[in-house]
Amino acid sequence: MVTNSSWLYRGISEIFPDQPDADSPTENLVKRIEQANHPLRVKLGIDPTGTDIHLGHSTLFRKLRAFQDAGHTAVLIIGDFTAQIGDPTGKSEVRQQLTPQQVAANAETYLKQVRPILDCETPGRLEVRHNSEWLAKLDLSNIRELLATMTVGQMLAKEGFAERYKQGTPIYLHEFLYPLMQGYDSVAVESDVELGGTDQKFNLAVGRDLQRHFGQTPQFGLLMPILLGTDGVQKMSKSLNNYIGLSEDALSMYSKLEKIPDTLIEQYFELLTNRSLDHLPDNPRDRQKLLALDVASQYHGKENALNAQAAAIALVQGAGSQSDAVPEFSLSSVQFPSKIFYLVSATGLCKSSSEARRQIQGGAVKLDGQKVEQADLTFTSSEALRGKVLQLGKNKFVRFVE
Amino acid sequence: MVTNSSWLYRGISEIFPDQPDADSPTENLVKRIEQANHPLRVKLGIDPTGTDIHLGHSTLFRKLRAFQDAGHTAVLIIGDFTAQIGDPTGKSEVRQQLTPQQVAANAETYLKQVRPILDCETPGRLEVRHNSEWLAKLDLSNIRELLATMTVGQMLAKEGFAERYKQGTPIYLHEFLYPLMQGYDSVAVESDVELGGTDQKFNLAVGRDLQRHFGQTPQFGLLMPILLGTDGVQKMSKSLNNYIGLSEDALSMYSKLEKIPDTLIEQYFELLTNRSLDHLPDNPRDRQKLLALDVASQYHGKENALNAQAAAIALVQGAGSQSDAVPEFSLSSVQFPSKIFYLVSATGLCKSSSEARRQIQGGAVKLDGQKVEQADLTFTSSEALRGKVLQLGKNKFVRFVE
Repeated sequence: MVTNSSWLYRGISEIFPDQPDADSPTENLVKRIEQANHPLRVKLGIDPTGTDIHLGHSTLFRKLRAFQDAGHTAVLIIGDFTAQIGDPTGKSEVRQQLTPQQVAANAETYLKQVRPILDCETPGRLEVRHNSEWLAKLDLSNIRELLATMTVGQMLAKEGFAERYKQGTPIYLHEFLYPLMQGYDSVAVESDVELGGTDQKFNLAVGRDLQRHFGQTPQFGLLMPILLGTDGVQKMSKSLNNYIGLSEDALSMYSKLEKIPDTLIEQYFELLTNRSLDHLPDNPRDRQKLLALDVASQYHGKENALNAQAAAIALVQGAGSQSDAVPEFSLSSVQFPSKIFYLVSATGLCKSSSEARRQIQGGAVKLDGQKVEQADLTFTSSEALRGKVLQLGKNKFVRFVE
Repeated sequence: MVTNSSWLYRGISEIFPDQPDADSPTENLVKRIEQANHPLRVKLGIDPTGTDIHLGHSTLFRKLRAFQDAGHTAVLIIGDFTAQIGDPTGKSEVRQQLTPQQVAANAETYLKQVRPILDCETPGRLEVRHNSEWLAKLDLSNIRELLATMTVGQMLAKEGFAERYKQGTPIYLHEFLYPLMQGYDSVAVESDVELGGTDQKFNLAVGRDLQRHFGQTPQFGLLMPILLGTDGVQKMSKSLNNYIGLSEDALSMYSKLEKIPDTLIEQYFELLTNRSLDHLPDNPRDRQKLLALDVASQYHGKENALNAQAAAIALVQGAGSQSDAVPEFSLSSVQFPSKIFYLVSATGLCKSSSEARRQIQGGAVKLDGQKVEQADLTFTSSEALRGKVLQLGKNKFVRFVE
């Protein structure tokens, strides 16, 4: 097949090997795609070492989805085994070892969050594998064989290791296993392409070496840039508190995205949406709103995203610059099923249940920007309320939290 | 028990940890021996990577025997698994990998040569183990655990690695496995003492670290000096041709030992015999002969050693300084069973069988220094002749070789 490969190049940092003029399907990914008579196997490895998946991680899954949409097979590898070893990439310290139970729980949470991005329905488009399937079977002879493919010098040249070695920070020997295990995953699933952040280039290259060692055609590496956080300065990360989590409620996601600095807007559109960059609104404020609505829709559906937008507008109009300071109300004190008039009173927006009923009947109460019509509206669990904002009149707000 | 520990200290290079004044059985080996209420487990690991066992190797086995004689258990570990990885110690290049078949064959030859040194009879004094028993069972998690006990810096500080790394000679990652596997052997057999050459100190120390990691009392390391070769200058080694092999015939062994330089005599007596160094003969020539007779007796029995001595004397008297140049006669051309008169003729010492018979009857033929009494003395195979010297009169010699 002949491909329109604009989807392939959108937002990427690098494809390697990259010989755009080469006709060889081992040196030119577009040729490999065109000449393949079967769907390519596109590997993405995730290490369930944490549960805080954010938009920074989503760029890889979005690229994986693009491959799925072009007819290829996404091979999602849950690094349940490697997570127990820990990826030393970019870490200045050796990582804590996780228990198998922690890893399993993290993997489940992780998958739940990224499934909305992927095509999980079309047959043959998604393969979810756990690398314990093959790594747990390796014995000392196999591991010896893997280790023998690399020298200490090559390993210490790896970013992160090099700095630590120079600084005298201890590098424990088991850390050398990580790139090899990760690379062996490519052999095990026979991947044609592997996706990763730019900080993963070494690991992806090890995968190529090991595939060659085991007689396979080496995969292509496709590197995505590291997404900057909401501060516009540093890599998006939970610890820097400049992140937007995939599990955040619609209003929170919307509110953060509509404040993204103008310097980041283009990259965010490119990496986080499918919109053409040629037809973005001229007005910076309109660009922010469009981005926020688009991304929130992807994770919460269009209706919830529109409600979040309405609530955000109400918040801004009501609380002015105080919108960040919406008081929170914990749902843990509420007994379900619970009616809305009770909640309006329990949160303290009204002094009594009867006042709450009156305000609802007078049309002064909104939930995430939508007017509440019936005082007896019943919620059977906290699920439907979590993260939503309850509003009385123009400037009294409470946000439900777990 | 209170020990006379002179046997323990005889000829050693180092015991570590070594706190002669310490009362603790973890810091003072003599205390450990005295306070133990069971035989100590004394480990010696051998890597069946070659078959040329020589007197340089024997010093470790002799020390092991001394432990046996003091009531302890020799735990001889055949490194059938580690041999496949290869010990990088003191090697400037990465080692060739051996097949399991080569390793098994080497191990058999090796054991056959060292058995005469050990007490293989007394119950409980010898345990022969193969490290594939435990190493082949290790999986990636176990290996990760072992690797995590050491840093790259610690490993690169090891003699051999340090030099190679500095010189830019590639060090392959699997070479790091060797010291850990060897150390894990100590855990597997729960050794109390490990014997090794001075070049093994690092590996023995890794054994201590791993025992500590796995909750065992760390072993003591007992290091033996490296034996110099017959040249008196370099380490005894086959490749330098300054060695005396354990499988050499009595005459060859005797002849080499009686020429040992005077500078080496004391160390040879100390490391290769049980004789008191206080009562050695004054005359250097007598010292050499005593050493040669003692050592040859250990491997060939006293009678064969005395015969070898007689043959050596005859050789020297007959051939003067030519004793190295005894012509060889290959037994491969002889059909067995074969009679001695035929052999005297076949070697060319006599011109005909009838002359050979006459010379034998006249008492002019000796085999390894012993007069041949009967012309019809029959040999059923080459076994009994190999390495022996056939002598006619005072100055005609032929040595049988395979």
